[in-house]
Amino acid sequence: MAQLRVLIIGGVACGPKTASRLKRLCPDADVTMIERDSLISYGACGLPYYVEGEFLNINALTHTQVGLPRTADFFQRTKGFKVITRTEAIRIHRDKKTVAVKHLETGETSELPYDKLVLATGGSAFRPPIPGLDLKNVWFMTHPEHARTLVEEIKAQGLETAVMVGAGLIGMEMAEALIQRGLNVTMVEMVDQILPGILDKDIAAYVQTHLEDNDVELVLGERVVGLDGDEAGRVTSVRTDRRAIPADCVVVAVGTRPNDELAKAAGLFCDRGILVNENCQTSDPDIYAGGDCVVNRFINKTVAQPMYVPLGSTANKHGRTIANHIAGCQTPFPGINGTGVVKAFDYTVGRTGLTETMARRLGIDYASIVWGGPDRPHYMKKARYFLIKMLADKRDRKVLGVQVAGAGDGAKRLDVAASTIYYGGTLEDLADIDLAYAPPFSPPIDPIAVCAHVLSNKMDGIARCLNVYETKERMDRKEVILLDVREPDENKMLKMAYERVVHIPLGELRERLNEIPRDTDIITFCKISLRGYEAQRILQAAGFDRVWFMEGGHEAWPFELDYLGM
Amino acid sequence: MAQLRVLIIGGVACGPKTASRLKRLCPDADVTMIERDSLISYGACGLPYYVEGEFLNINALTHTQVGLPRTADFFQRTKGFKVITRTEAIRIHRDKKTVAVKHLETGETSELPYDKLVLATGGSAFRPPIPGLDLKNVWFMTHPEHARTLVEEIKAQGLETAVMVGAGLIGMEMAEALIQRGLNVTMVEMVDQILPGILDKDIAAYVQTHLEDNDVELVLGERVVGLDGDEAGRVTSVRTDRRAIPADCVVVAVGTRPNDELAKAAGLFCDRGILVNENCQTSDPDIYAGGDCVVNRFINKTVAQPMYVPLGSTANKHGRTIANHIAGCQTPFPGINGTGVVKAFDYTVGRTGLTETMARRLGIDYASIVWGGPDRPHYMKKARYFLIKMLADKRDRKVLGVQVAGAGDGAKRLDVAASTIYYGGTLEDLADIDLAYAPPFSPPIDPIAVCAHVLSNKMDGIARCLNVYETKERMDRKEVILLDVREPDENKMLKMAYERVVHIPLGELRERLNEIPRDTDIITFCKISLRGYEAQRILQAAGFDRVWFMEGGHEAWPFELDYLGM
Repeated sequence: MAQLRVLIIGGVACGPKTASRLKRLCPDADVTMIERDSLISYGACGLPYYVEGEFLNINALTHTQVGLPRTADFFQRTKGFKVITRTEAIRIHRDKKTVAVKHLETGETSELPYDKLVLATGGSAFRPPIPGLDLKNVWFMTHPEHARTLVEEIKAQGLETAVMVGAGLIGMEMAEALIQRGLNVTMVEMVDQILPGILDKDIAAYVQTHLEDNDVELVLGERVVGLDGDEAGRVTSVRTDRRAIPADCVVVAVGTRPNDELAKAAGLFCDRGILVNENCQTSDPDIYAGGDCVVNRFINKTVAQPMYVPLGSTANKHGRTIANHIAGCQTPFPGINGTGVVKAFDYTVGRTGLTETMARRLGIDYASIVWGGPDRPHYMKKARYFLIKMLADKRDRKVLGVQVAGAGDGAKRLDVAASTIYYGGTLEDLADIDLAYAPPFSPPIDPIAVCAHVLSNKMDGIARCLNVYETKERMDRKEVILLDVREPDENKMLKMAYERVVHIPLGELRERLNEIPRDTDIITFCKISLRGYEAQRILQAAGFDRVWFMEGGHEAWPFELDYLGM
Repeated sequence: MAQLRVLIIGGVACGPKTASRLKRLCPDADVTMIERDSLISYGACGLPYYVEGEFLNINALTHTQVGLPRTADFFQRTKGFKVITRTEAIRIHRDKKTVAVKHLETGETSELPYDKLVLATGGSAFRPPIPGLDLKNVWFMTHPEHARTLVEEIKAQGLETAVMVGAGLIGMEMAEALIQRGLNVTMVEMVDQILPGILDKDIAAYVQTHLEDNDVELVLGERVVGLDGDEAGRVTSVRTDRRAIPADCVVVAVGTRPNDELAKAAGLFCDRGILVNENCQTSDPDIYAGGDCVVNRFINKTVAQPMYVPLGSTANKHGRTIANHIAGCQTPFPGINGTGVVKAFDYTVGRTGLTETMARRLGIDYASIVWGGPDRPHYMKKARYFLIKMLADKRDRKVLGVQVAGAGDGAKRLDVAASTIYYGGTLEDLADIDLAYAPPFSPPIDPIAVCAHVLSNKMDGIARCLNVYETKERMDRKEVILLDVREPDENKMLKMAYERVVHIPLGELRERLNEIPRDTDIITFCKISLRGYEAQRILQAAGFDRVWFMEGGHEAWPFELDYLGM
């Protein structure tokens, strides 16, 4: 039998994974990986951490754990496949089963044959159609060279003022990195919230406060129309539709676009990314695609939403699925949750599954809740407050999405939620999982379970609550009385900025019901609305039927508060 | 309609949860909770952390987050149910539907009627049948008073030397707490490993090294036969079947037994705990039971193993199920994983699901693997090494159990594994979950996914490997050659203590195959056996058929190693 020839285009994440796995499964296969760049198999996700100074040698991103450089030679020697760098794929000839390639050093072209072709062409940073992107001191952040030169130039030129264009995940990481480097950082985002498309506005608002507390200047809801420079061709400012922001340097991170040109030109089905089946096969069964060049599907099949979420974790999963399938073993890739997480100073921020915005756009009949509280028992020093927002489908009570934000350990809860969404679990399932409990790690009822309970209660009409925006809206219309059920000293320290607040500590509520008017809407609250919920139940049992509690309590309130009653 | 009378016996975890939830669902119900003790609703899991000095006021365990004491009056006022403390249930009269109770202050008895009865009688520390347990300076650790007096007496008497009897979860926590208090700590355990019944021996061995590194003296495989004291009645030593260990103080933590006497006397079905159905009903449908007095079932119904795992997290879940069912809403409790976690100095140690020991005893045809590696990308400062051991069912590839140990964030991986076991997921599922990836939290392929992949590979015959005990056994019989595929400087720093080691760096292996004998068993290894696995595949492809890699690499090796080749 002739040797199986597998050609892989792209050498960053999905490519090397496919090739390595395939050589372990089929040692006799002839596996070749070509890459346009000279670097291969680098950890692009680590770039902001190099800029931050987390590690000092950029080579850490291209070396193995024990310090071996992941070069062409390394892969040839340890994994047994061939790597050709500085070589670009020009055209796929599906009829001849060859790929025309161009060697970038020499300009020579040649044709490489394949039995199976793997497209792992990745994604590229989106270049917005504005003038000035080619000025000096303007960076994208997708390649080790970008991070290395940024750090070098900060030192060499003494750069002091940075503007981040885009408030996505990379924007968050880079803003923190540059603040840690001592720069003044302004972040400009076209949408009127940070992490658009990733978080809902209420959760984003909570994170924005934390960014501002850490000296990130936020300019939201303004569109960047161009970058201006001096006579030396260096950037001097970022112009938005409303102002000019001085800048010694600019980092642009406004999204990634799939590199699907090659696939499109070959007539493969594409729709904002290469379309693949569960085996990562394109519309040509001999051509596979994986990583940042493909569009994924949401794991929840009853929602069936295409999702373009370029991530190294998914790229590796694709690689394994592709290698297995080429080797004759079907291990279909079931889809993604659209999970994303980011550290933003002391906060862990992320989401898995659908946001409220997405659910609404998809026409899903959902219920949602925001819970706030500590991640560990309150007597543990490491206990930290955070928010969880959860969405469930009203038809089947399946968990649709979870967002976390705050200083508490949200990453762990995100992973549990991601698991539940993967398996199609309901709110009741999520609350019943036997999670690992001990005081250094969590309270006896884990926050993610508490949040699922509260959402269950809301869907069952037991918990009646309003989120901070709904509450604010009613306050703005002066249509409502707030009932503060906290203790007197809590009330003394911090008040809601509103004139119609009645203050009755929860423990006195049952005896003082006569102090509460019955002819108006009432919104109860406390610090995290645990007591607020209890108060709502007490009032409802006493015949008050226009009562709600405020989700997340005043801790989740992103608007003004009066400290010390000022 | 007559008012529903619900009587709850026990006021620590399941009791207050049931009562609070029930009053929210059925405000009109007459709910009474009785408790033998004067304290109610305390966080017993926090006791070791008080001893450690994590918090200074023991009241934190009986107060709410905002500092309100959870007294009888507190529950009456905020939750609306009645609490009677210092009152013991003597006998259940199922025919009359009453409970005879004794008021411990006055000695008076009376009868309390019920429509629904809830047994939340908890568990008690097992008192081993040995002399000396009543000596002064001997503590059990189940009540805030125990922790408070221990700390008080350490200071007052200047106690310096502690012996922990039992190396279970509480033993771990207490050993660390006492070391932090500056005491010398010896831990005695009847079984020849720590955390028996919780961890397998290989994982336990890995943790033992860490305990010893933190100055805990381990005495394993010795049975305590008695405690000796001085003429003042103070403990002076712990006698085992082989030695006497001096002790200023002793903490005994050798397990918990369910308080099921009341249930047994009432003729309710019990078998090492009260037996309940999914609604937490006992064999009398008007009598519920929950918390540490009941025996649970393993969530995986194809295994169907009763499990006695007393935990505050489970007690709260039972409480919710009971309250819901009484209120007319079925939310069956599906069972537990037997999840347990503990912080042991810098290590996070725990398990969910079955251990290998349990699987073997149950006659399950399982496969298992030990994986070791960092919890984050190696370039991140917080990256820490840890071990994951995973078991899967050979019939259906469902994940059966996971153990973690090490400085890495094992708690998060345990929760993901617990979720997978809850939902009946396979190894492939576990590896496909869209977990939250960013460098501060995890590598692109999460360790739990890598571990699932390796076990998959092992079950498919692609990865051939031996655990450390199997490796050691063959080394002891001198039946094997070890193939070290690390780099030269790694080999110089640290060697396996064995005479038949061949050293060929992975990158040279394909060219130097002729240096490896073909007539003997070969076990490959590196630091974590990632390269060891690659080497096994290379050798197998080259026709070596007696080759395995060592699971977890030398990092997982609990036996002697030669540092700097000494």
